[in-house]
Amino acid sequence: MEQGTKERSLVSKVMDGLVTGIVEEKYGAVLPPQDVLSKEFDVSRTVMREALSMLLARHMLDVRPKIGTRIRPMRDWRMIDEDVVNWRFRAKPDPAFLRDVIEFRMLIEPRASAQAAQRANAADIVAIREAFENFRSIGPDDPAHQAADELLHTRIVVASGNQFFQQMAAIVRGALSASNQLILANQGVWDEVLRKHARVVEAIERHDAAEAEAASRDLIDFAADEIGNAIPANGKHE
Amino acid sequence: MEQGTKERSLVSKVMDGLVTGIVEEKYGAVLPPQDVLSKEFDVSRTVMREALSMLLARHMLDVRPKIGTRIRPMRDWRMIDEDVVNWRFRAKPDPAFLRDVIEFRMLIEPRASAQAAQRANAADIVAIREAFENFRSIGPDDPAHQAADELLHTRIVVASGNQFFQQMAAIVRGALSASNQLILANQGVWDEVLRKHARVVEAIERHDAAEAEAASRDLIDFAADEIGNAIPANGKHE
Repeated sequence: MEQGTKERSLVSKVMDGLVTGIVEEKYGAVLPPQDVLSKEFDVSRTVMREALSMLLARHMLDVRPKIGTRIRPMRDWRMIDEDVVNWRFRAKPDPAFLRDVIEFRMLIEPRASAQAAQRANAADIVAIREAFENFRSIGPDDPAHQAADELLHTRIVVASGNQFFQQMAAIVRGALSASNQLILANQGVWDEVLRKHARVVEAIERHDAAEAEAASRDLIDFAADEIGNAIPANGKHE
Repeated sequence: MEQGTKERSLVSKVMDGLVTGIVEEKYGAVLPPQDVLSKEFDVSRTVMREALSMLLARHMLDVRPKIGTRIRPMRDWRMIDEDVVNWRFRAKPDPAFLRDVIEFRMLIEPRASAQAAQRANAADIVAIREAFENFRSIGPDDPAHQAADELLHTRIVVASGNQFFQQMAAIVRGALSASNQLILANQGVWDEVLRKHARVVEAIERHDAAEAEAASRDLIDFAADEIGNAIPANGKHE
C-alpha cells in the first residue's frame, strides 16, 4: 500500500503543478516534451507520464503527431466523469432515480433548446437538421437508433453555446438510454416522438426561442408519461 | 509506455468488472476482502488495489474499520470530477465563462430552491437555517466567509432531494467563489446580499416553492449585475 499511495500522491502533486502552469498560461499552446517536464518537476518519466495521461483522459490535453501535447481550450475540460455516469445508468433504474432523471432533463433541455434557437449559427443548424434526418430514417427497432437519438439531443445542447450545459450532454445521453429502454416502441408512439422532435428542430431553425423551449418541454412531458405507464411502482400502471 | 498502458487497461477492466458486480447486486452491502477479489479477477493485488482506489475516489466505496469495504448508495457516486471543476475555476475568468456560470446558476439554483421548499424535512430546514445564521454572523471580510456562503448554497441544493441537482453543488460552489472574488464587499452590497439570502431561506421554511424560486432568481440577478459592474469587458462598466 505504502508505495502505491506515495506514488499516487506524487502524481497528484505533479498534476496540480501542471494545471497551475496551464491556467497561468506559462506554457503557451503546447506543453514542453515529457523529458523536459520530468526534469522541471524533478520526477521520474513514469510519474510524469501518469500525470499527463490523467489530464489527457479529462480532455485537457491532446496529443498531435509532429506537434506534441497541445493544451485544449478550457471549455473542453471534462467536469463530468463519463465513466461514473455510464455506470450509474447501467444499474436497473428505480422510480426515484427515474423521477430525478426526468426532472434533470426538464431542467437542462428546454433551456438549452431555447438558447440553441437564439445562438445557433448556420453550421449548428445544418448539424442539427442532419442529425434529425438521420434519427428519422432509423426506426426504433434498429440497433443504431439509440446513437442517432443521442446525437440529435447532444447537438442541440452543444448549440446552446453554454459550456456548462454542454458538459451535461453526457447525463442527457444516459437519461435517454434509460428512458428509451422503457418506452414501448409501438408505431403510434414512434410517430408521436418523431413529430415532437421535429417541432423542436424547426423552432431552432426559425430562431424561435420560446417555441423551442415549449416544444422541448412537451417532448420530455411525453417521455415522462410513457415512462409512468411503463413502471408499475409509481402507481400509474394498471 | 507499453507497460504502463497495459497495466492501466487491466485496471480499467477490473474496475468495469467490479462495477458490473455492484450494479447487479452480486456482492450485497460489503465487498469481499481484497485478496479474495484478486483471486476472483485473477489479477495481482496491486492491480486490484489500484482499481478499488479509483472507485473509492469516486465515492462509490467506503472503507470502514472492522466492517470492510462498503458499497455506497448509487446516489452518492460522483458524476462530477471535482478536481476539474476546481481547476476550471482557478483560471482567471473571462466574460464568456462568467456569462455561462451565471446562466448555469440561474438554471440550477431557483429550481433547487423551489424543490427544497417542497421537499425539505425538519432536519433539512434546521440545517439550512443554521448555515444561514452562520453566514450572517461571518462578515464578508472574514476568511471563513467563502466557506459559509458555499455551505448555505450547498445545503439548499441538497434539500432539493434530486440527486442530479445535488451533484451540481460542486459547480455552484465554484461559481460562488468566482463571483465573490469580483463583487465588491462594501457594506451596502453586503446588507443587500444578506436580505436576499434571508428571503430564500424564509420561503423554504414556509414551504413556499414559488416564492423560493423567485427569491433565488432575484439573488442571482443581483450577483449578475454586480459582476457586470465589476467587469469592464462586457460593456456595462464606465
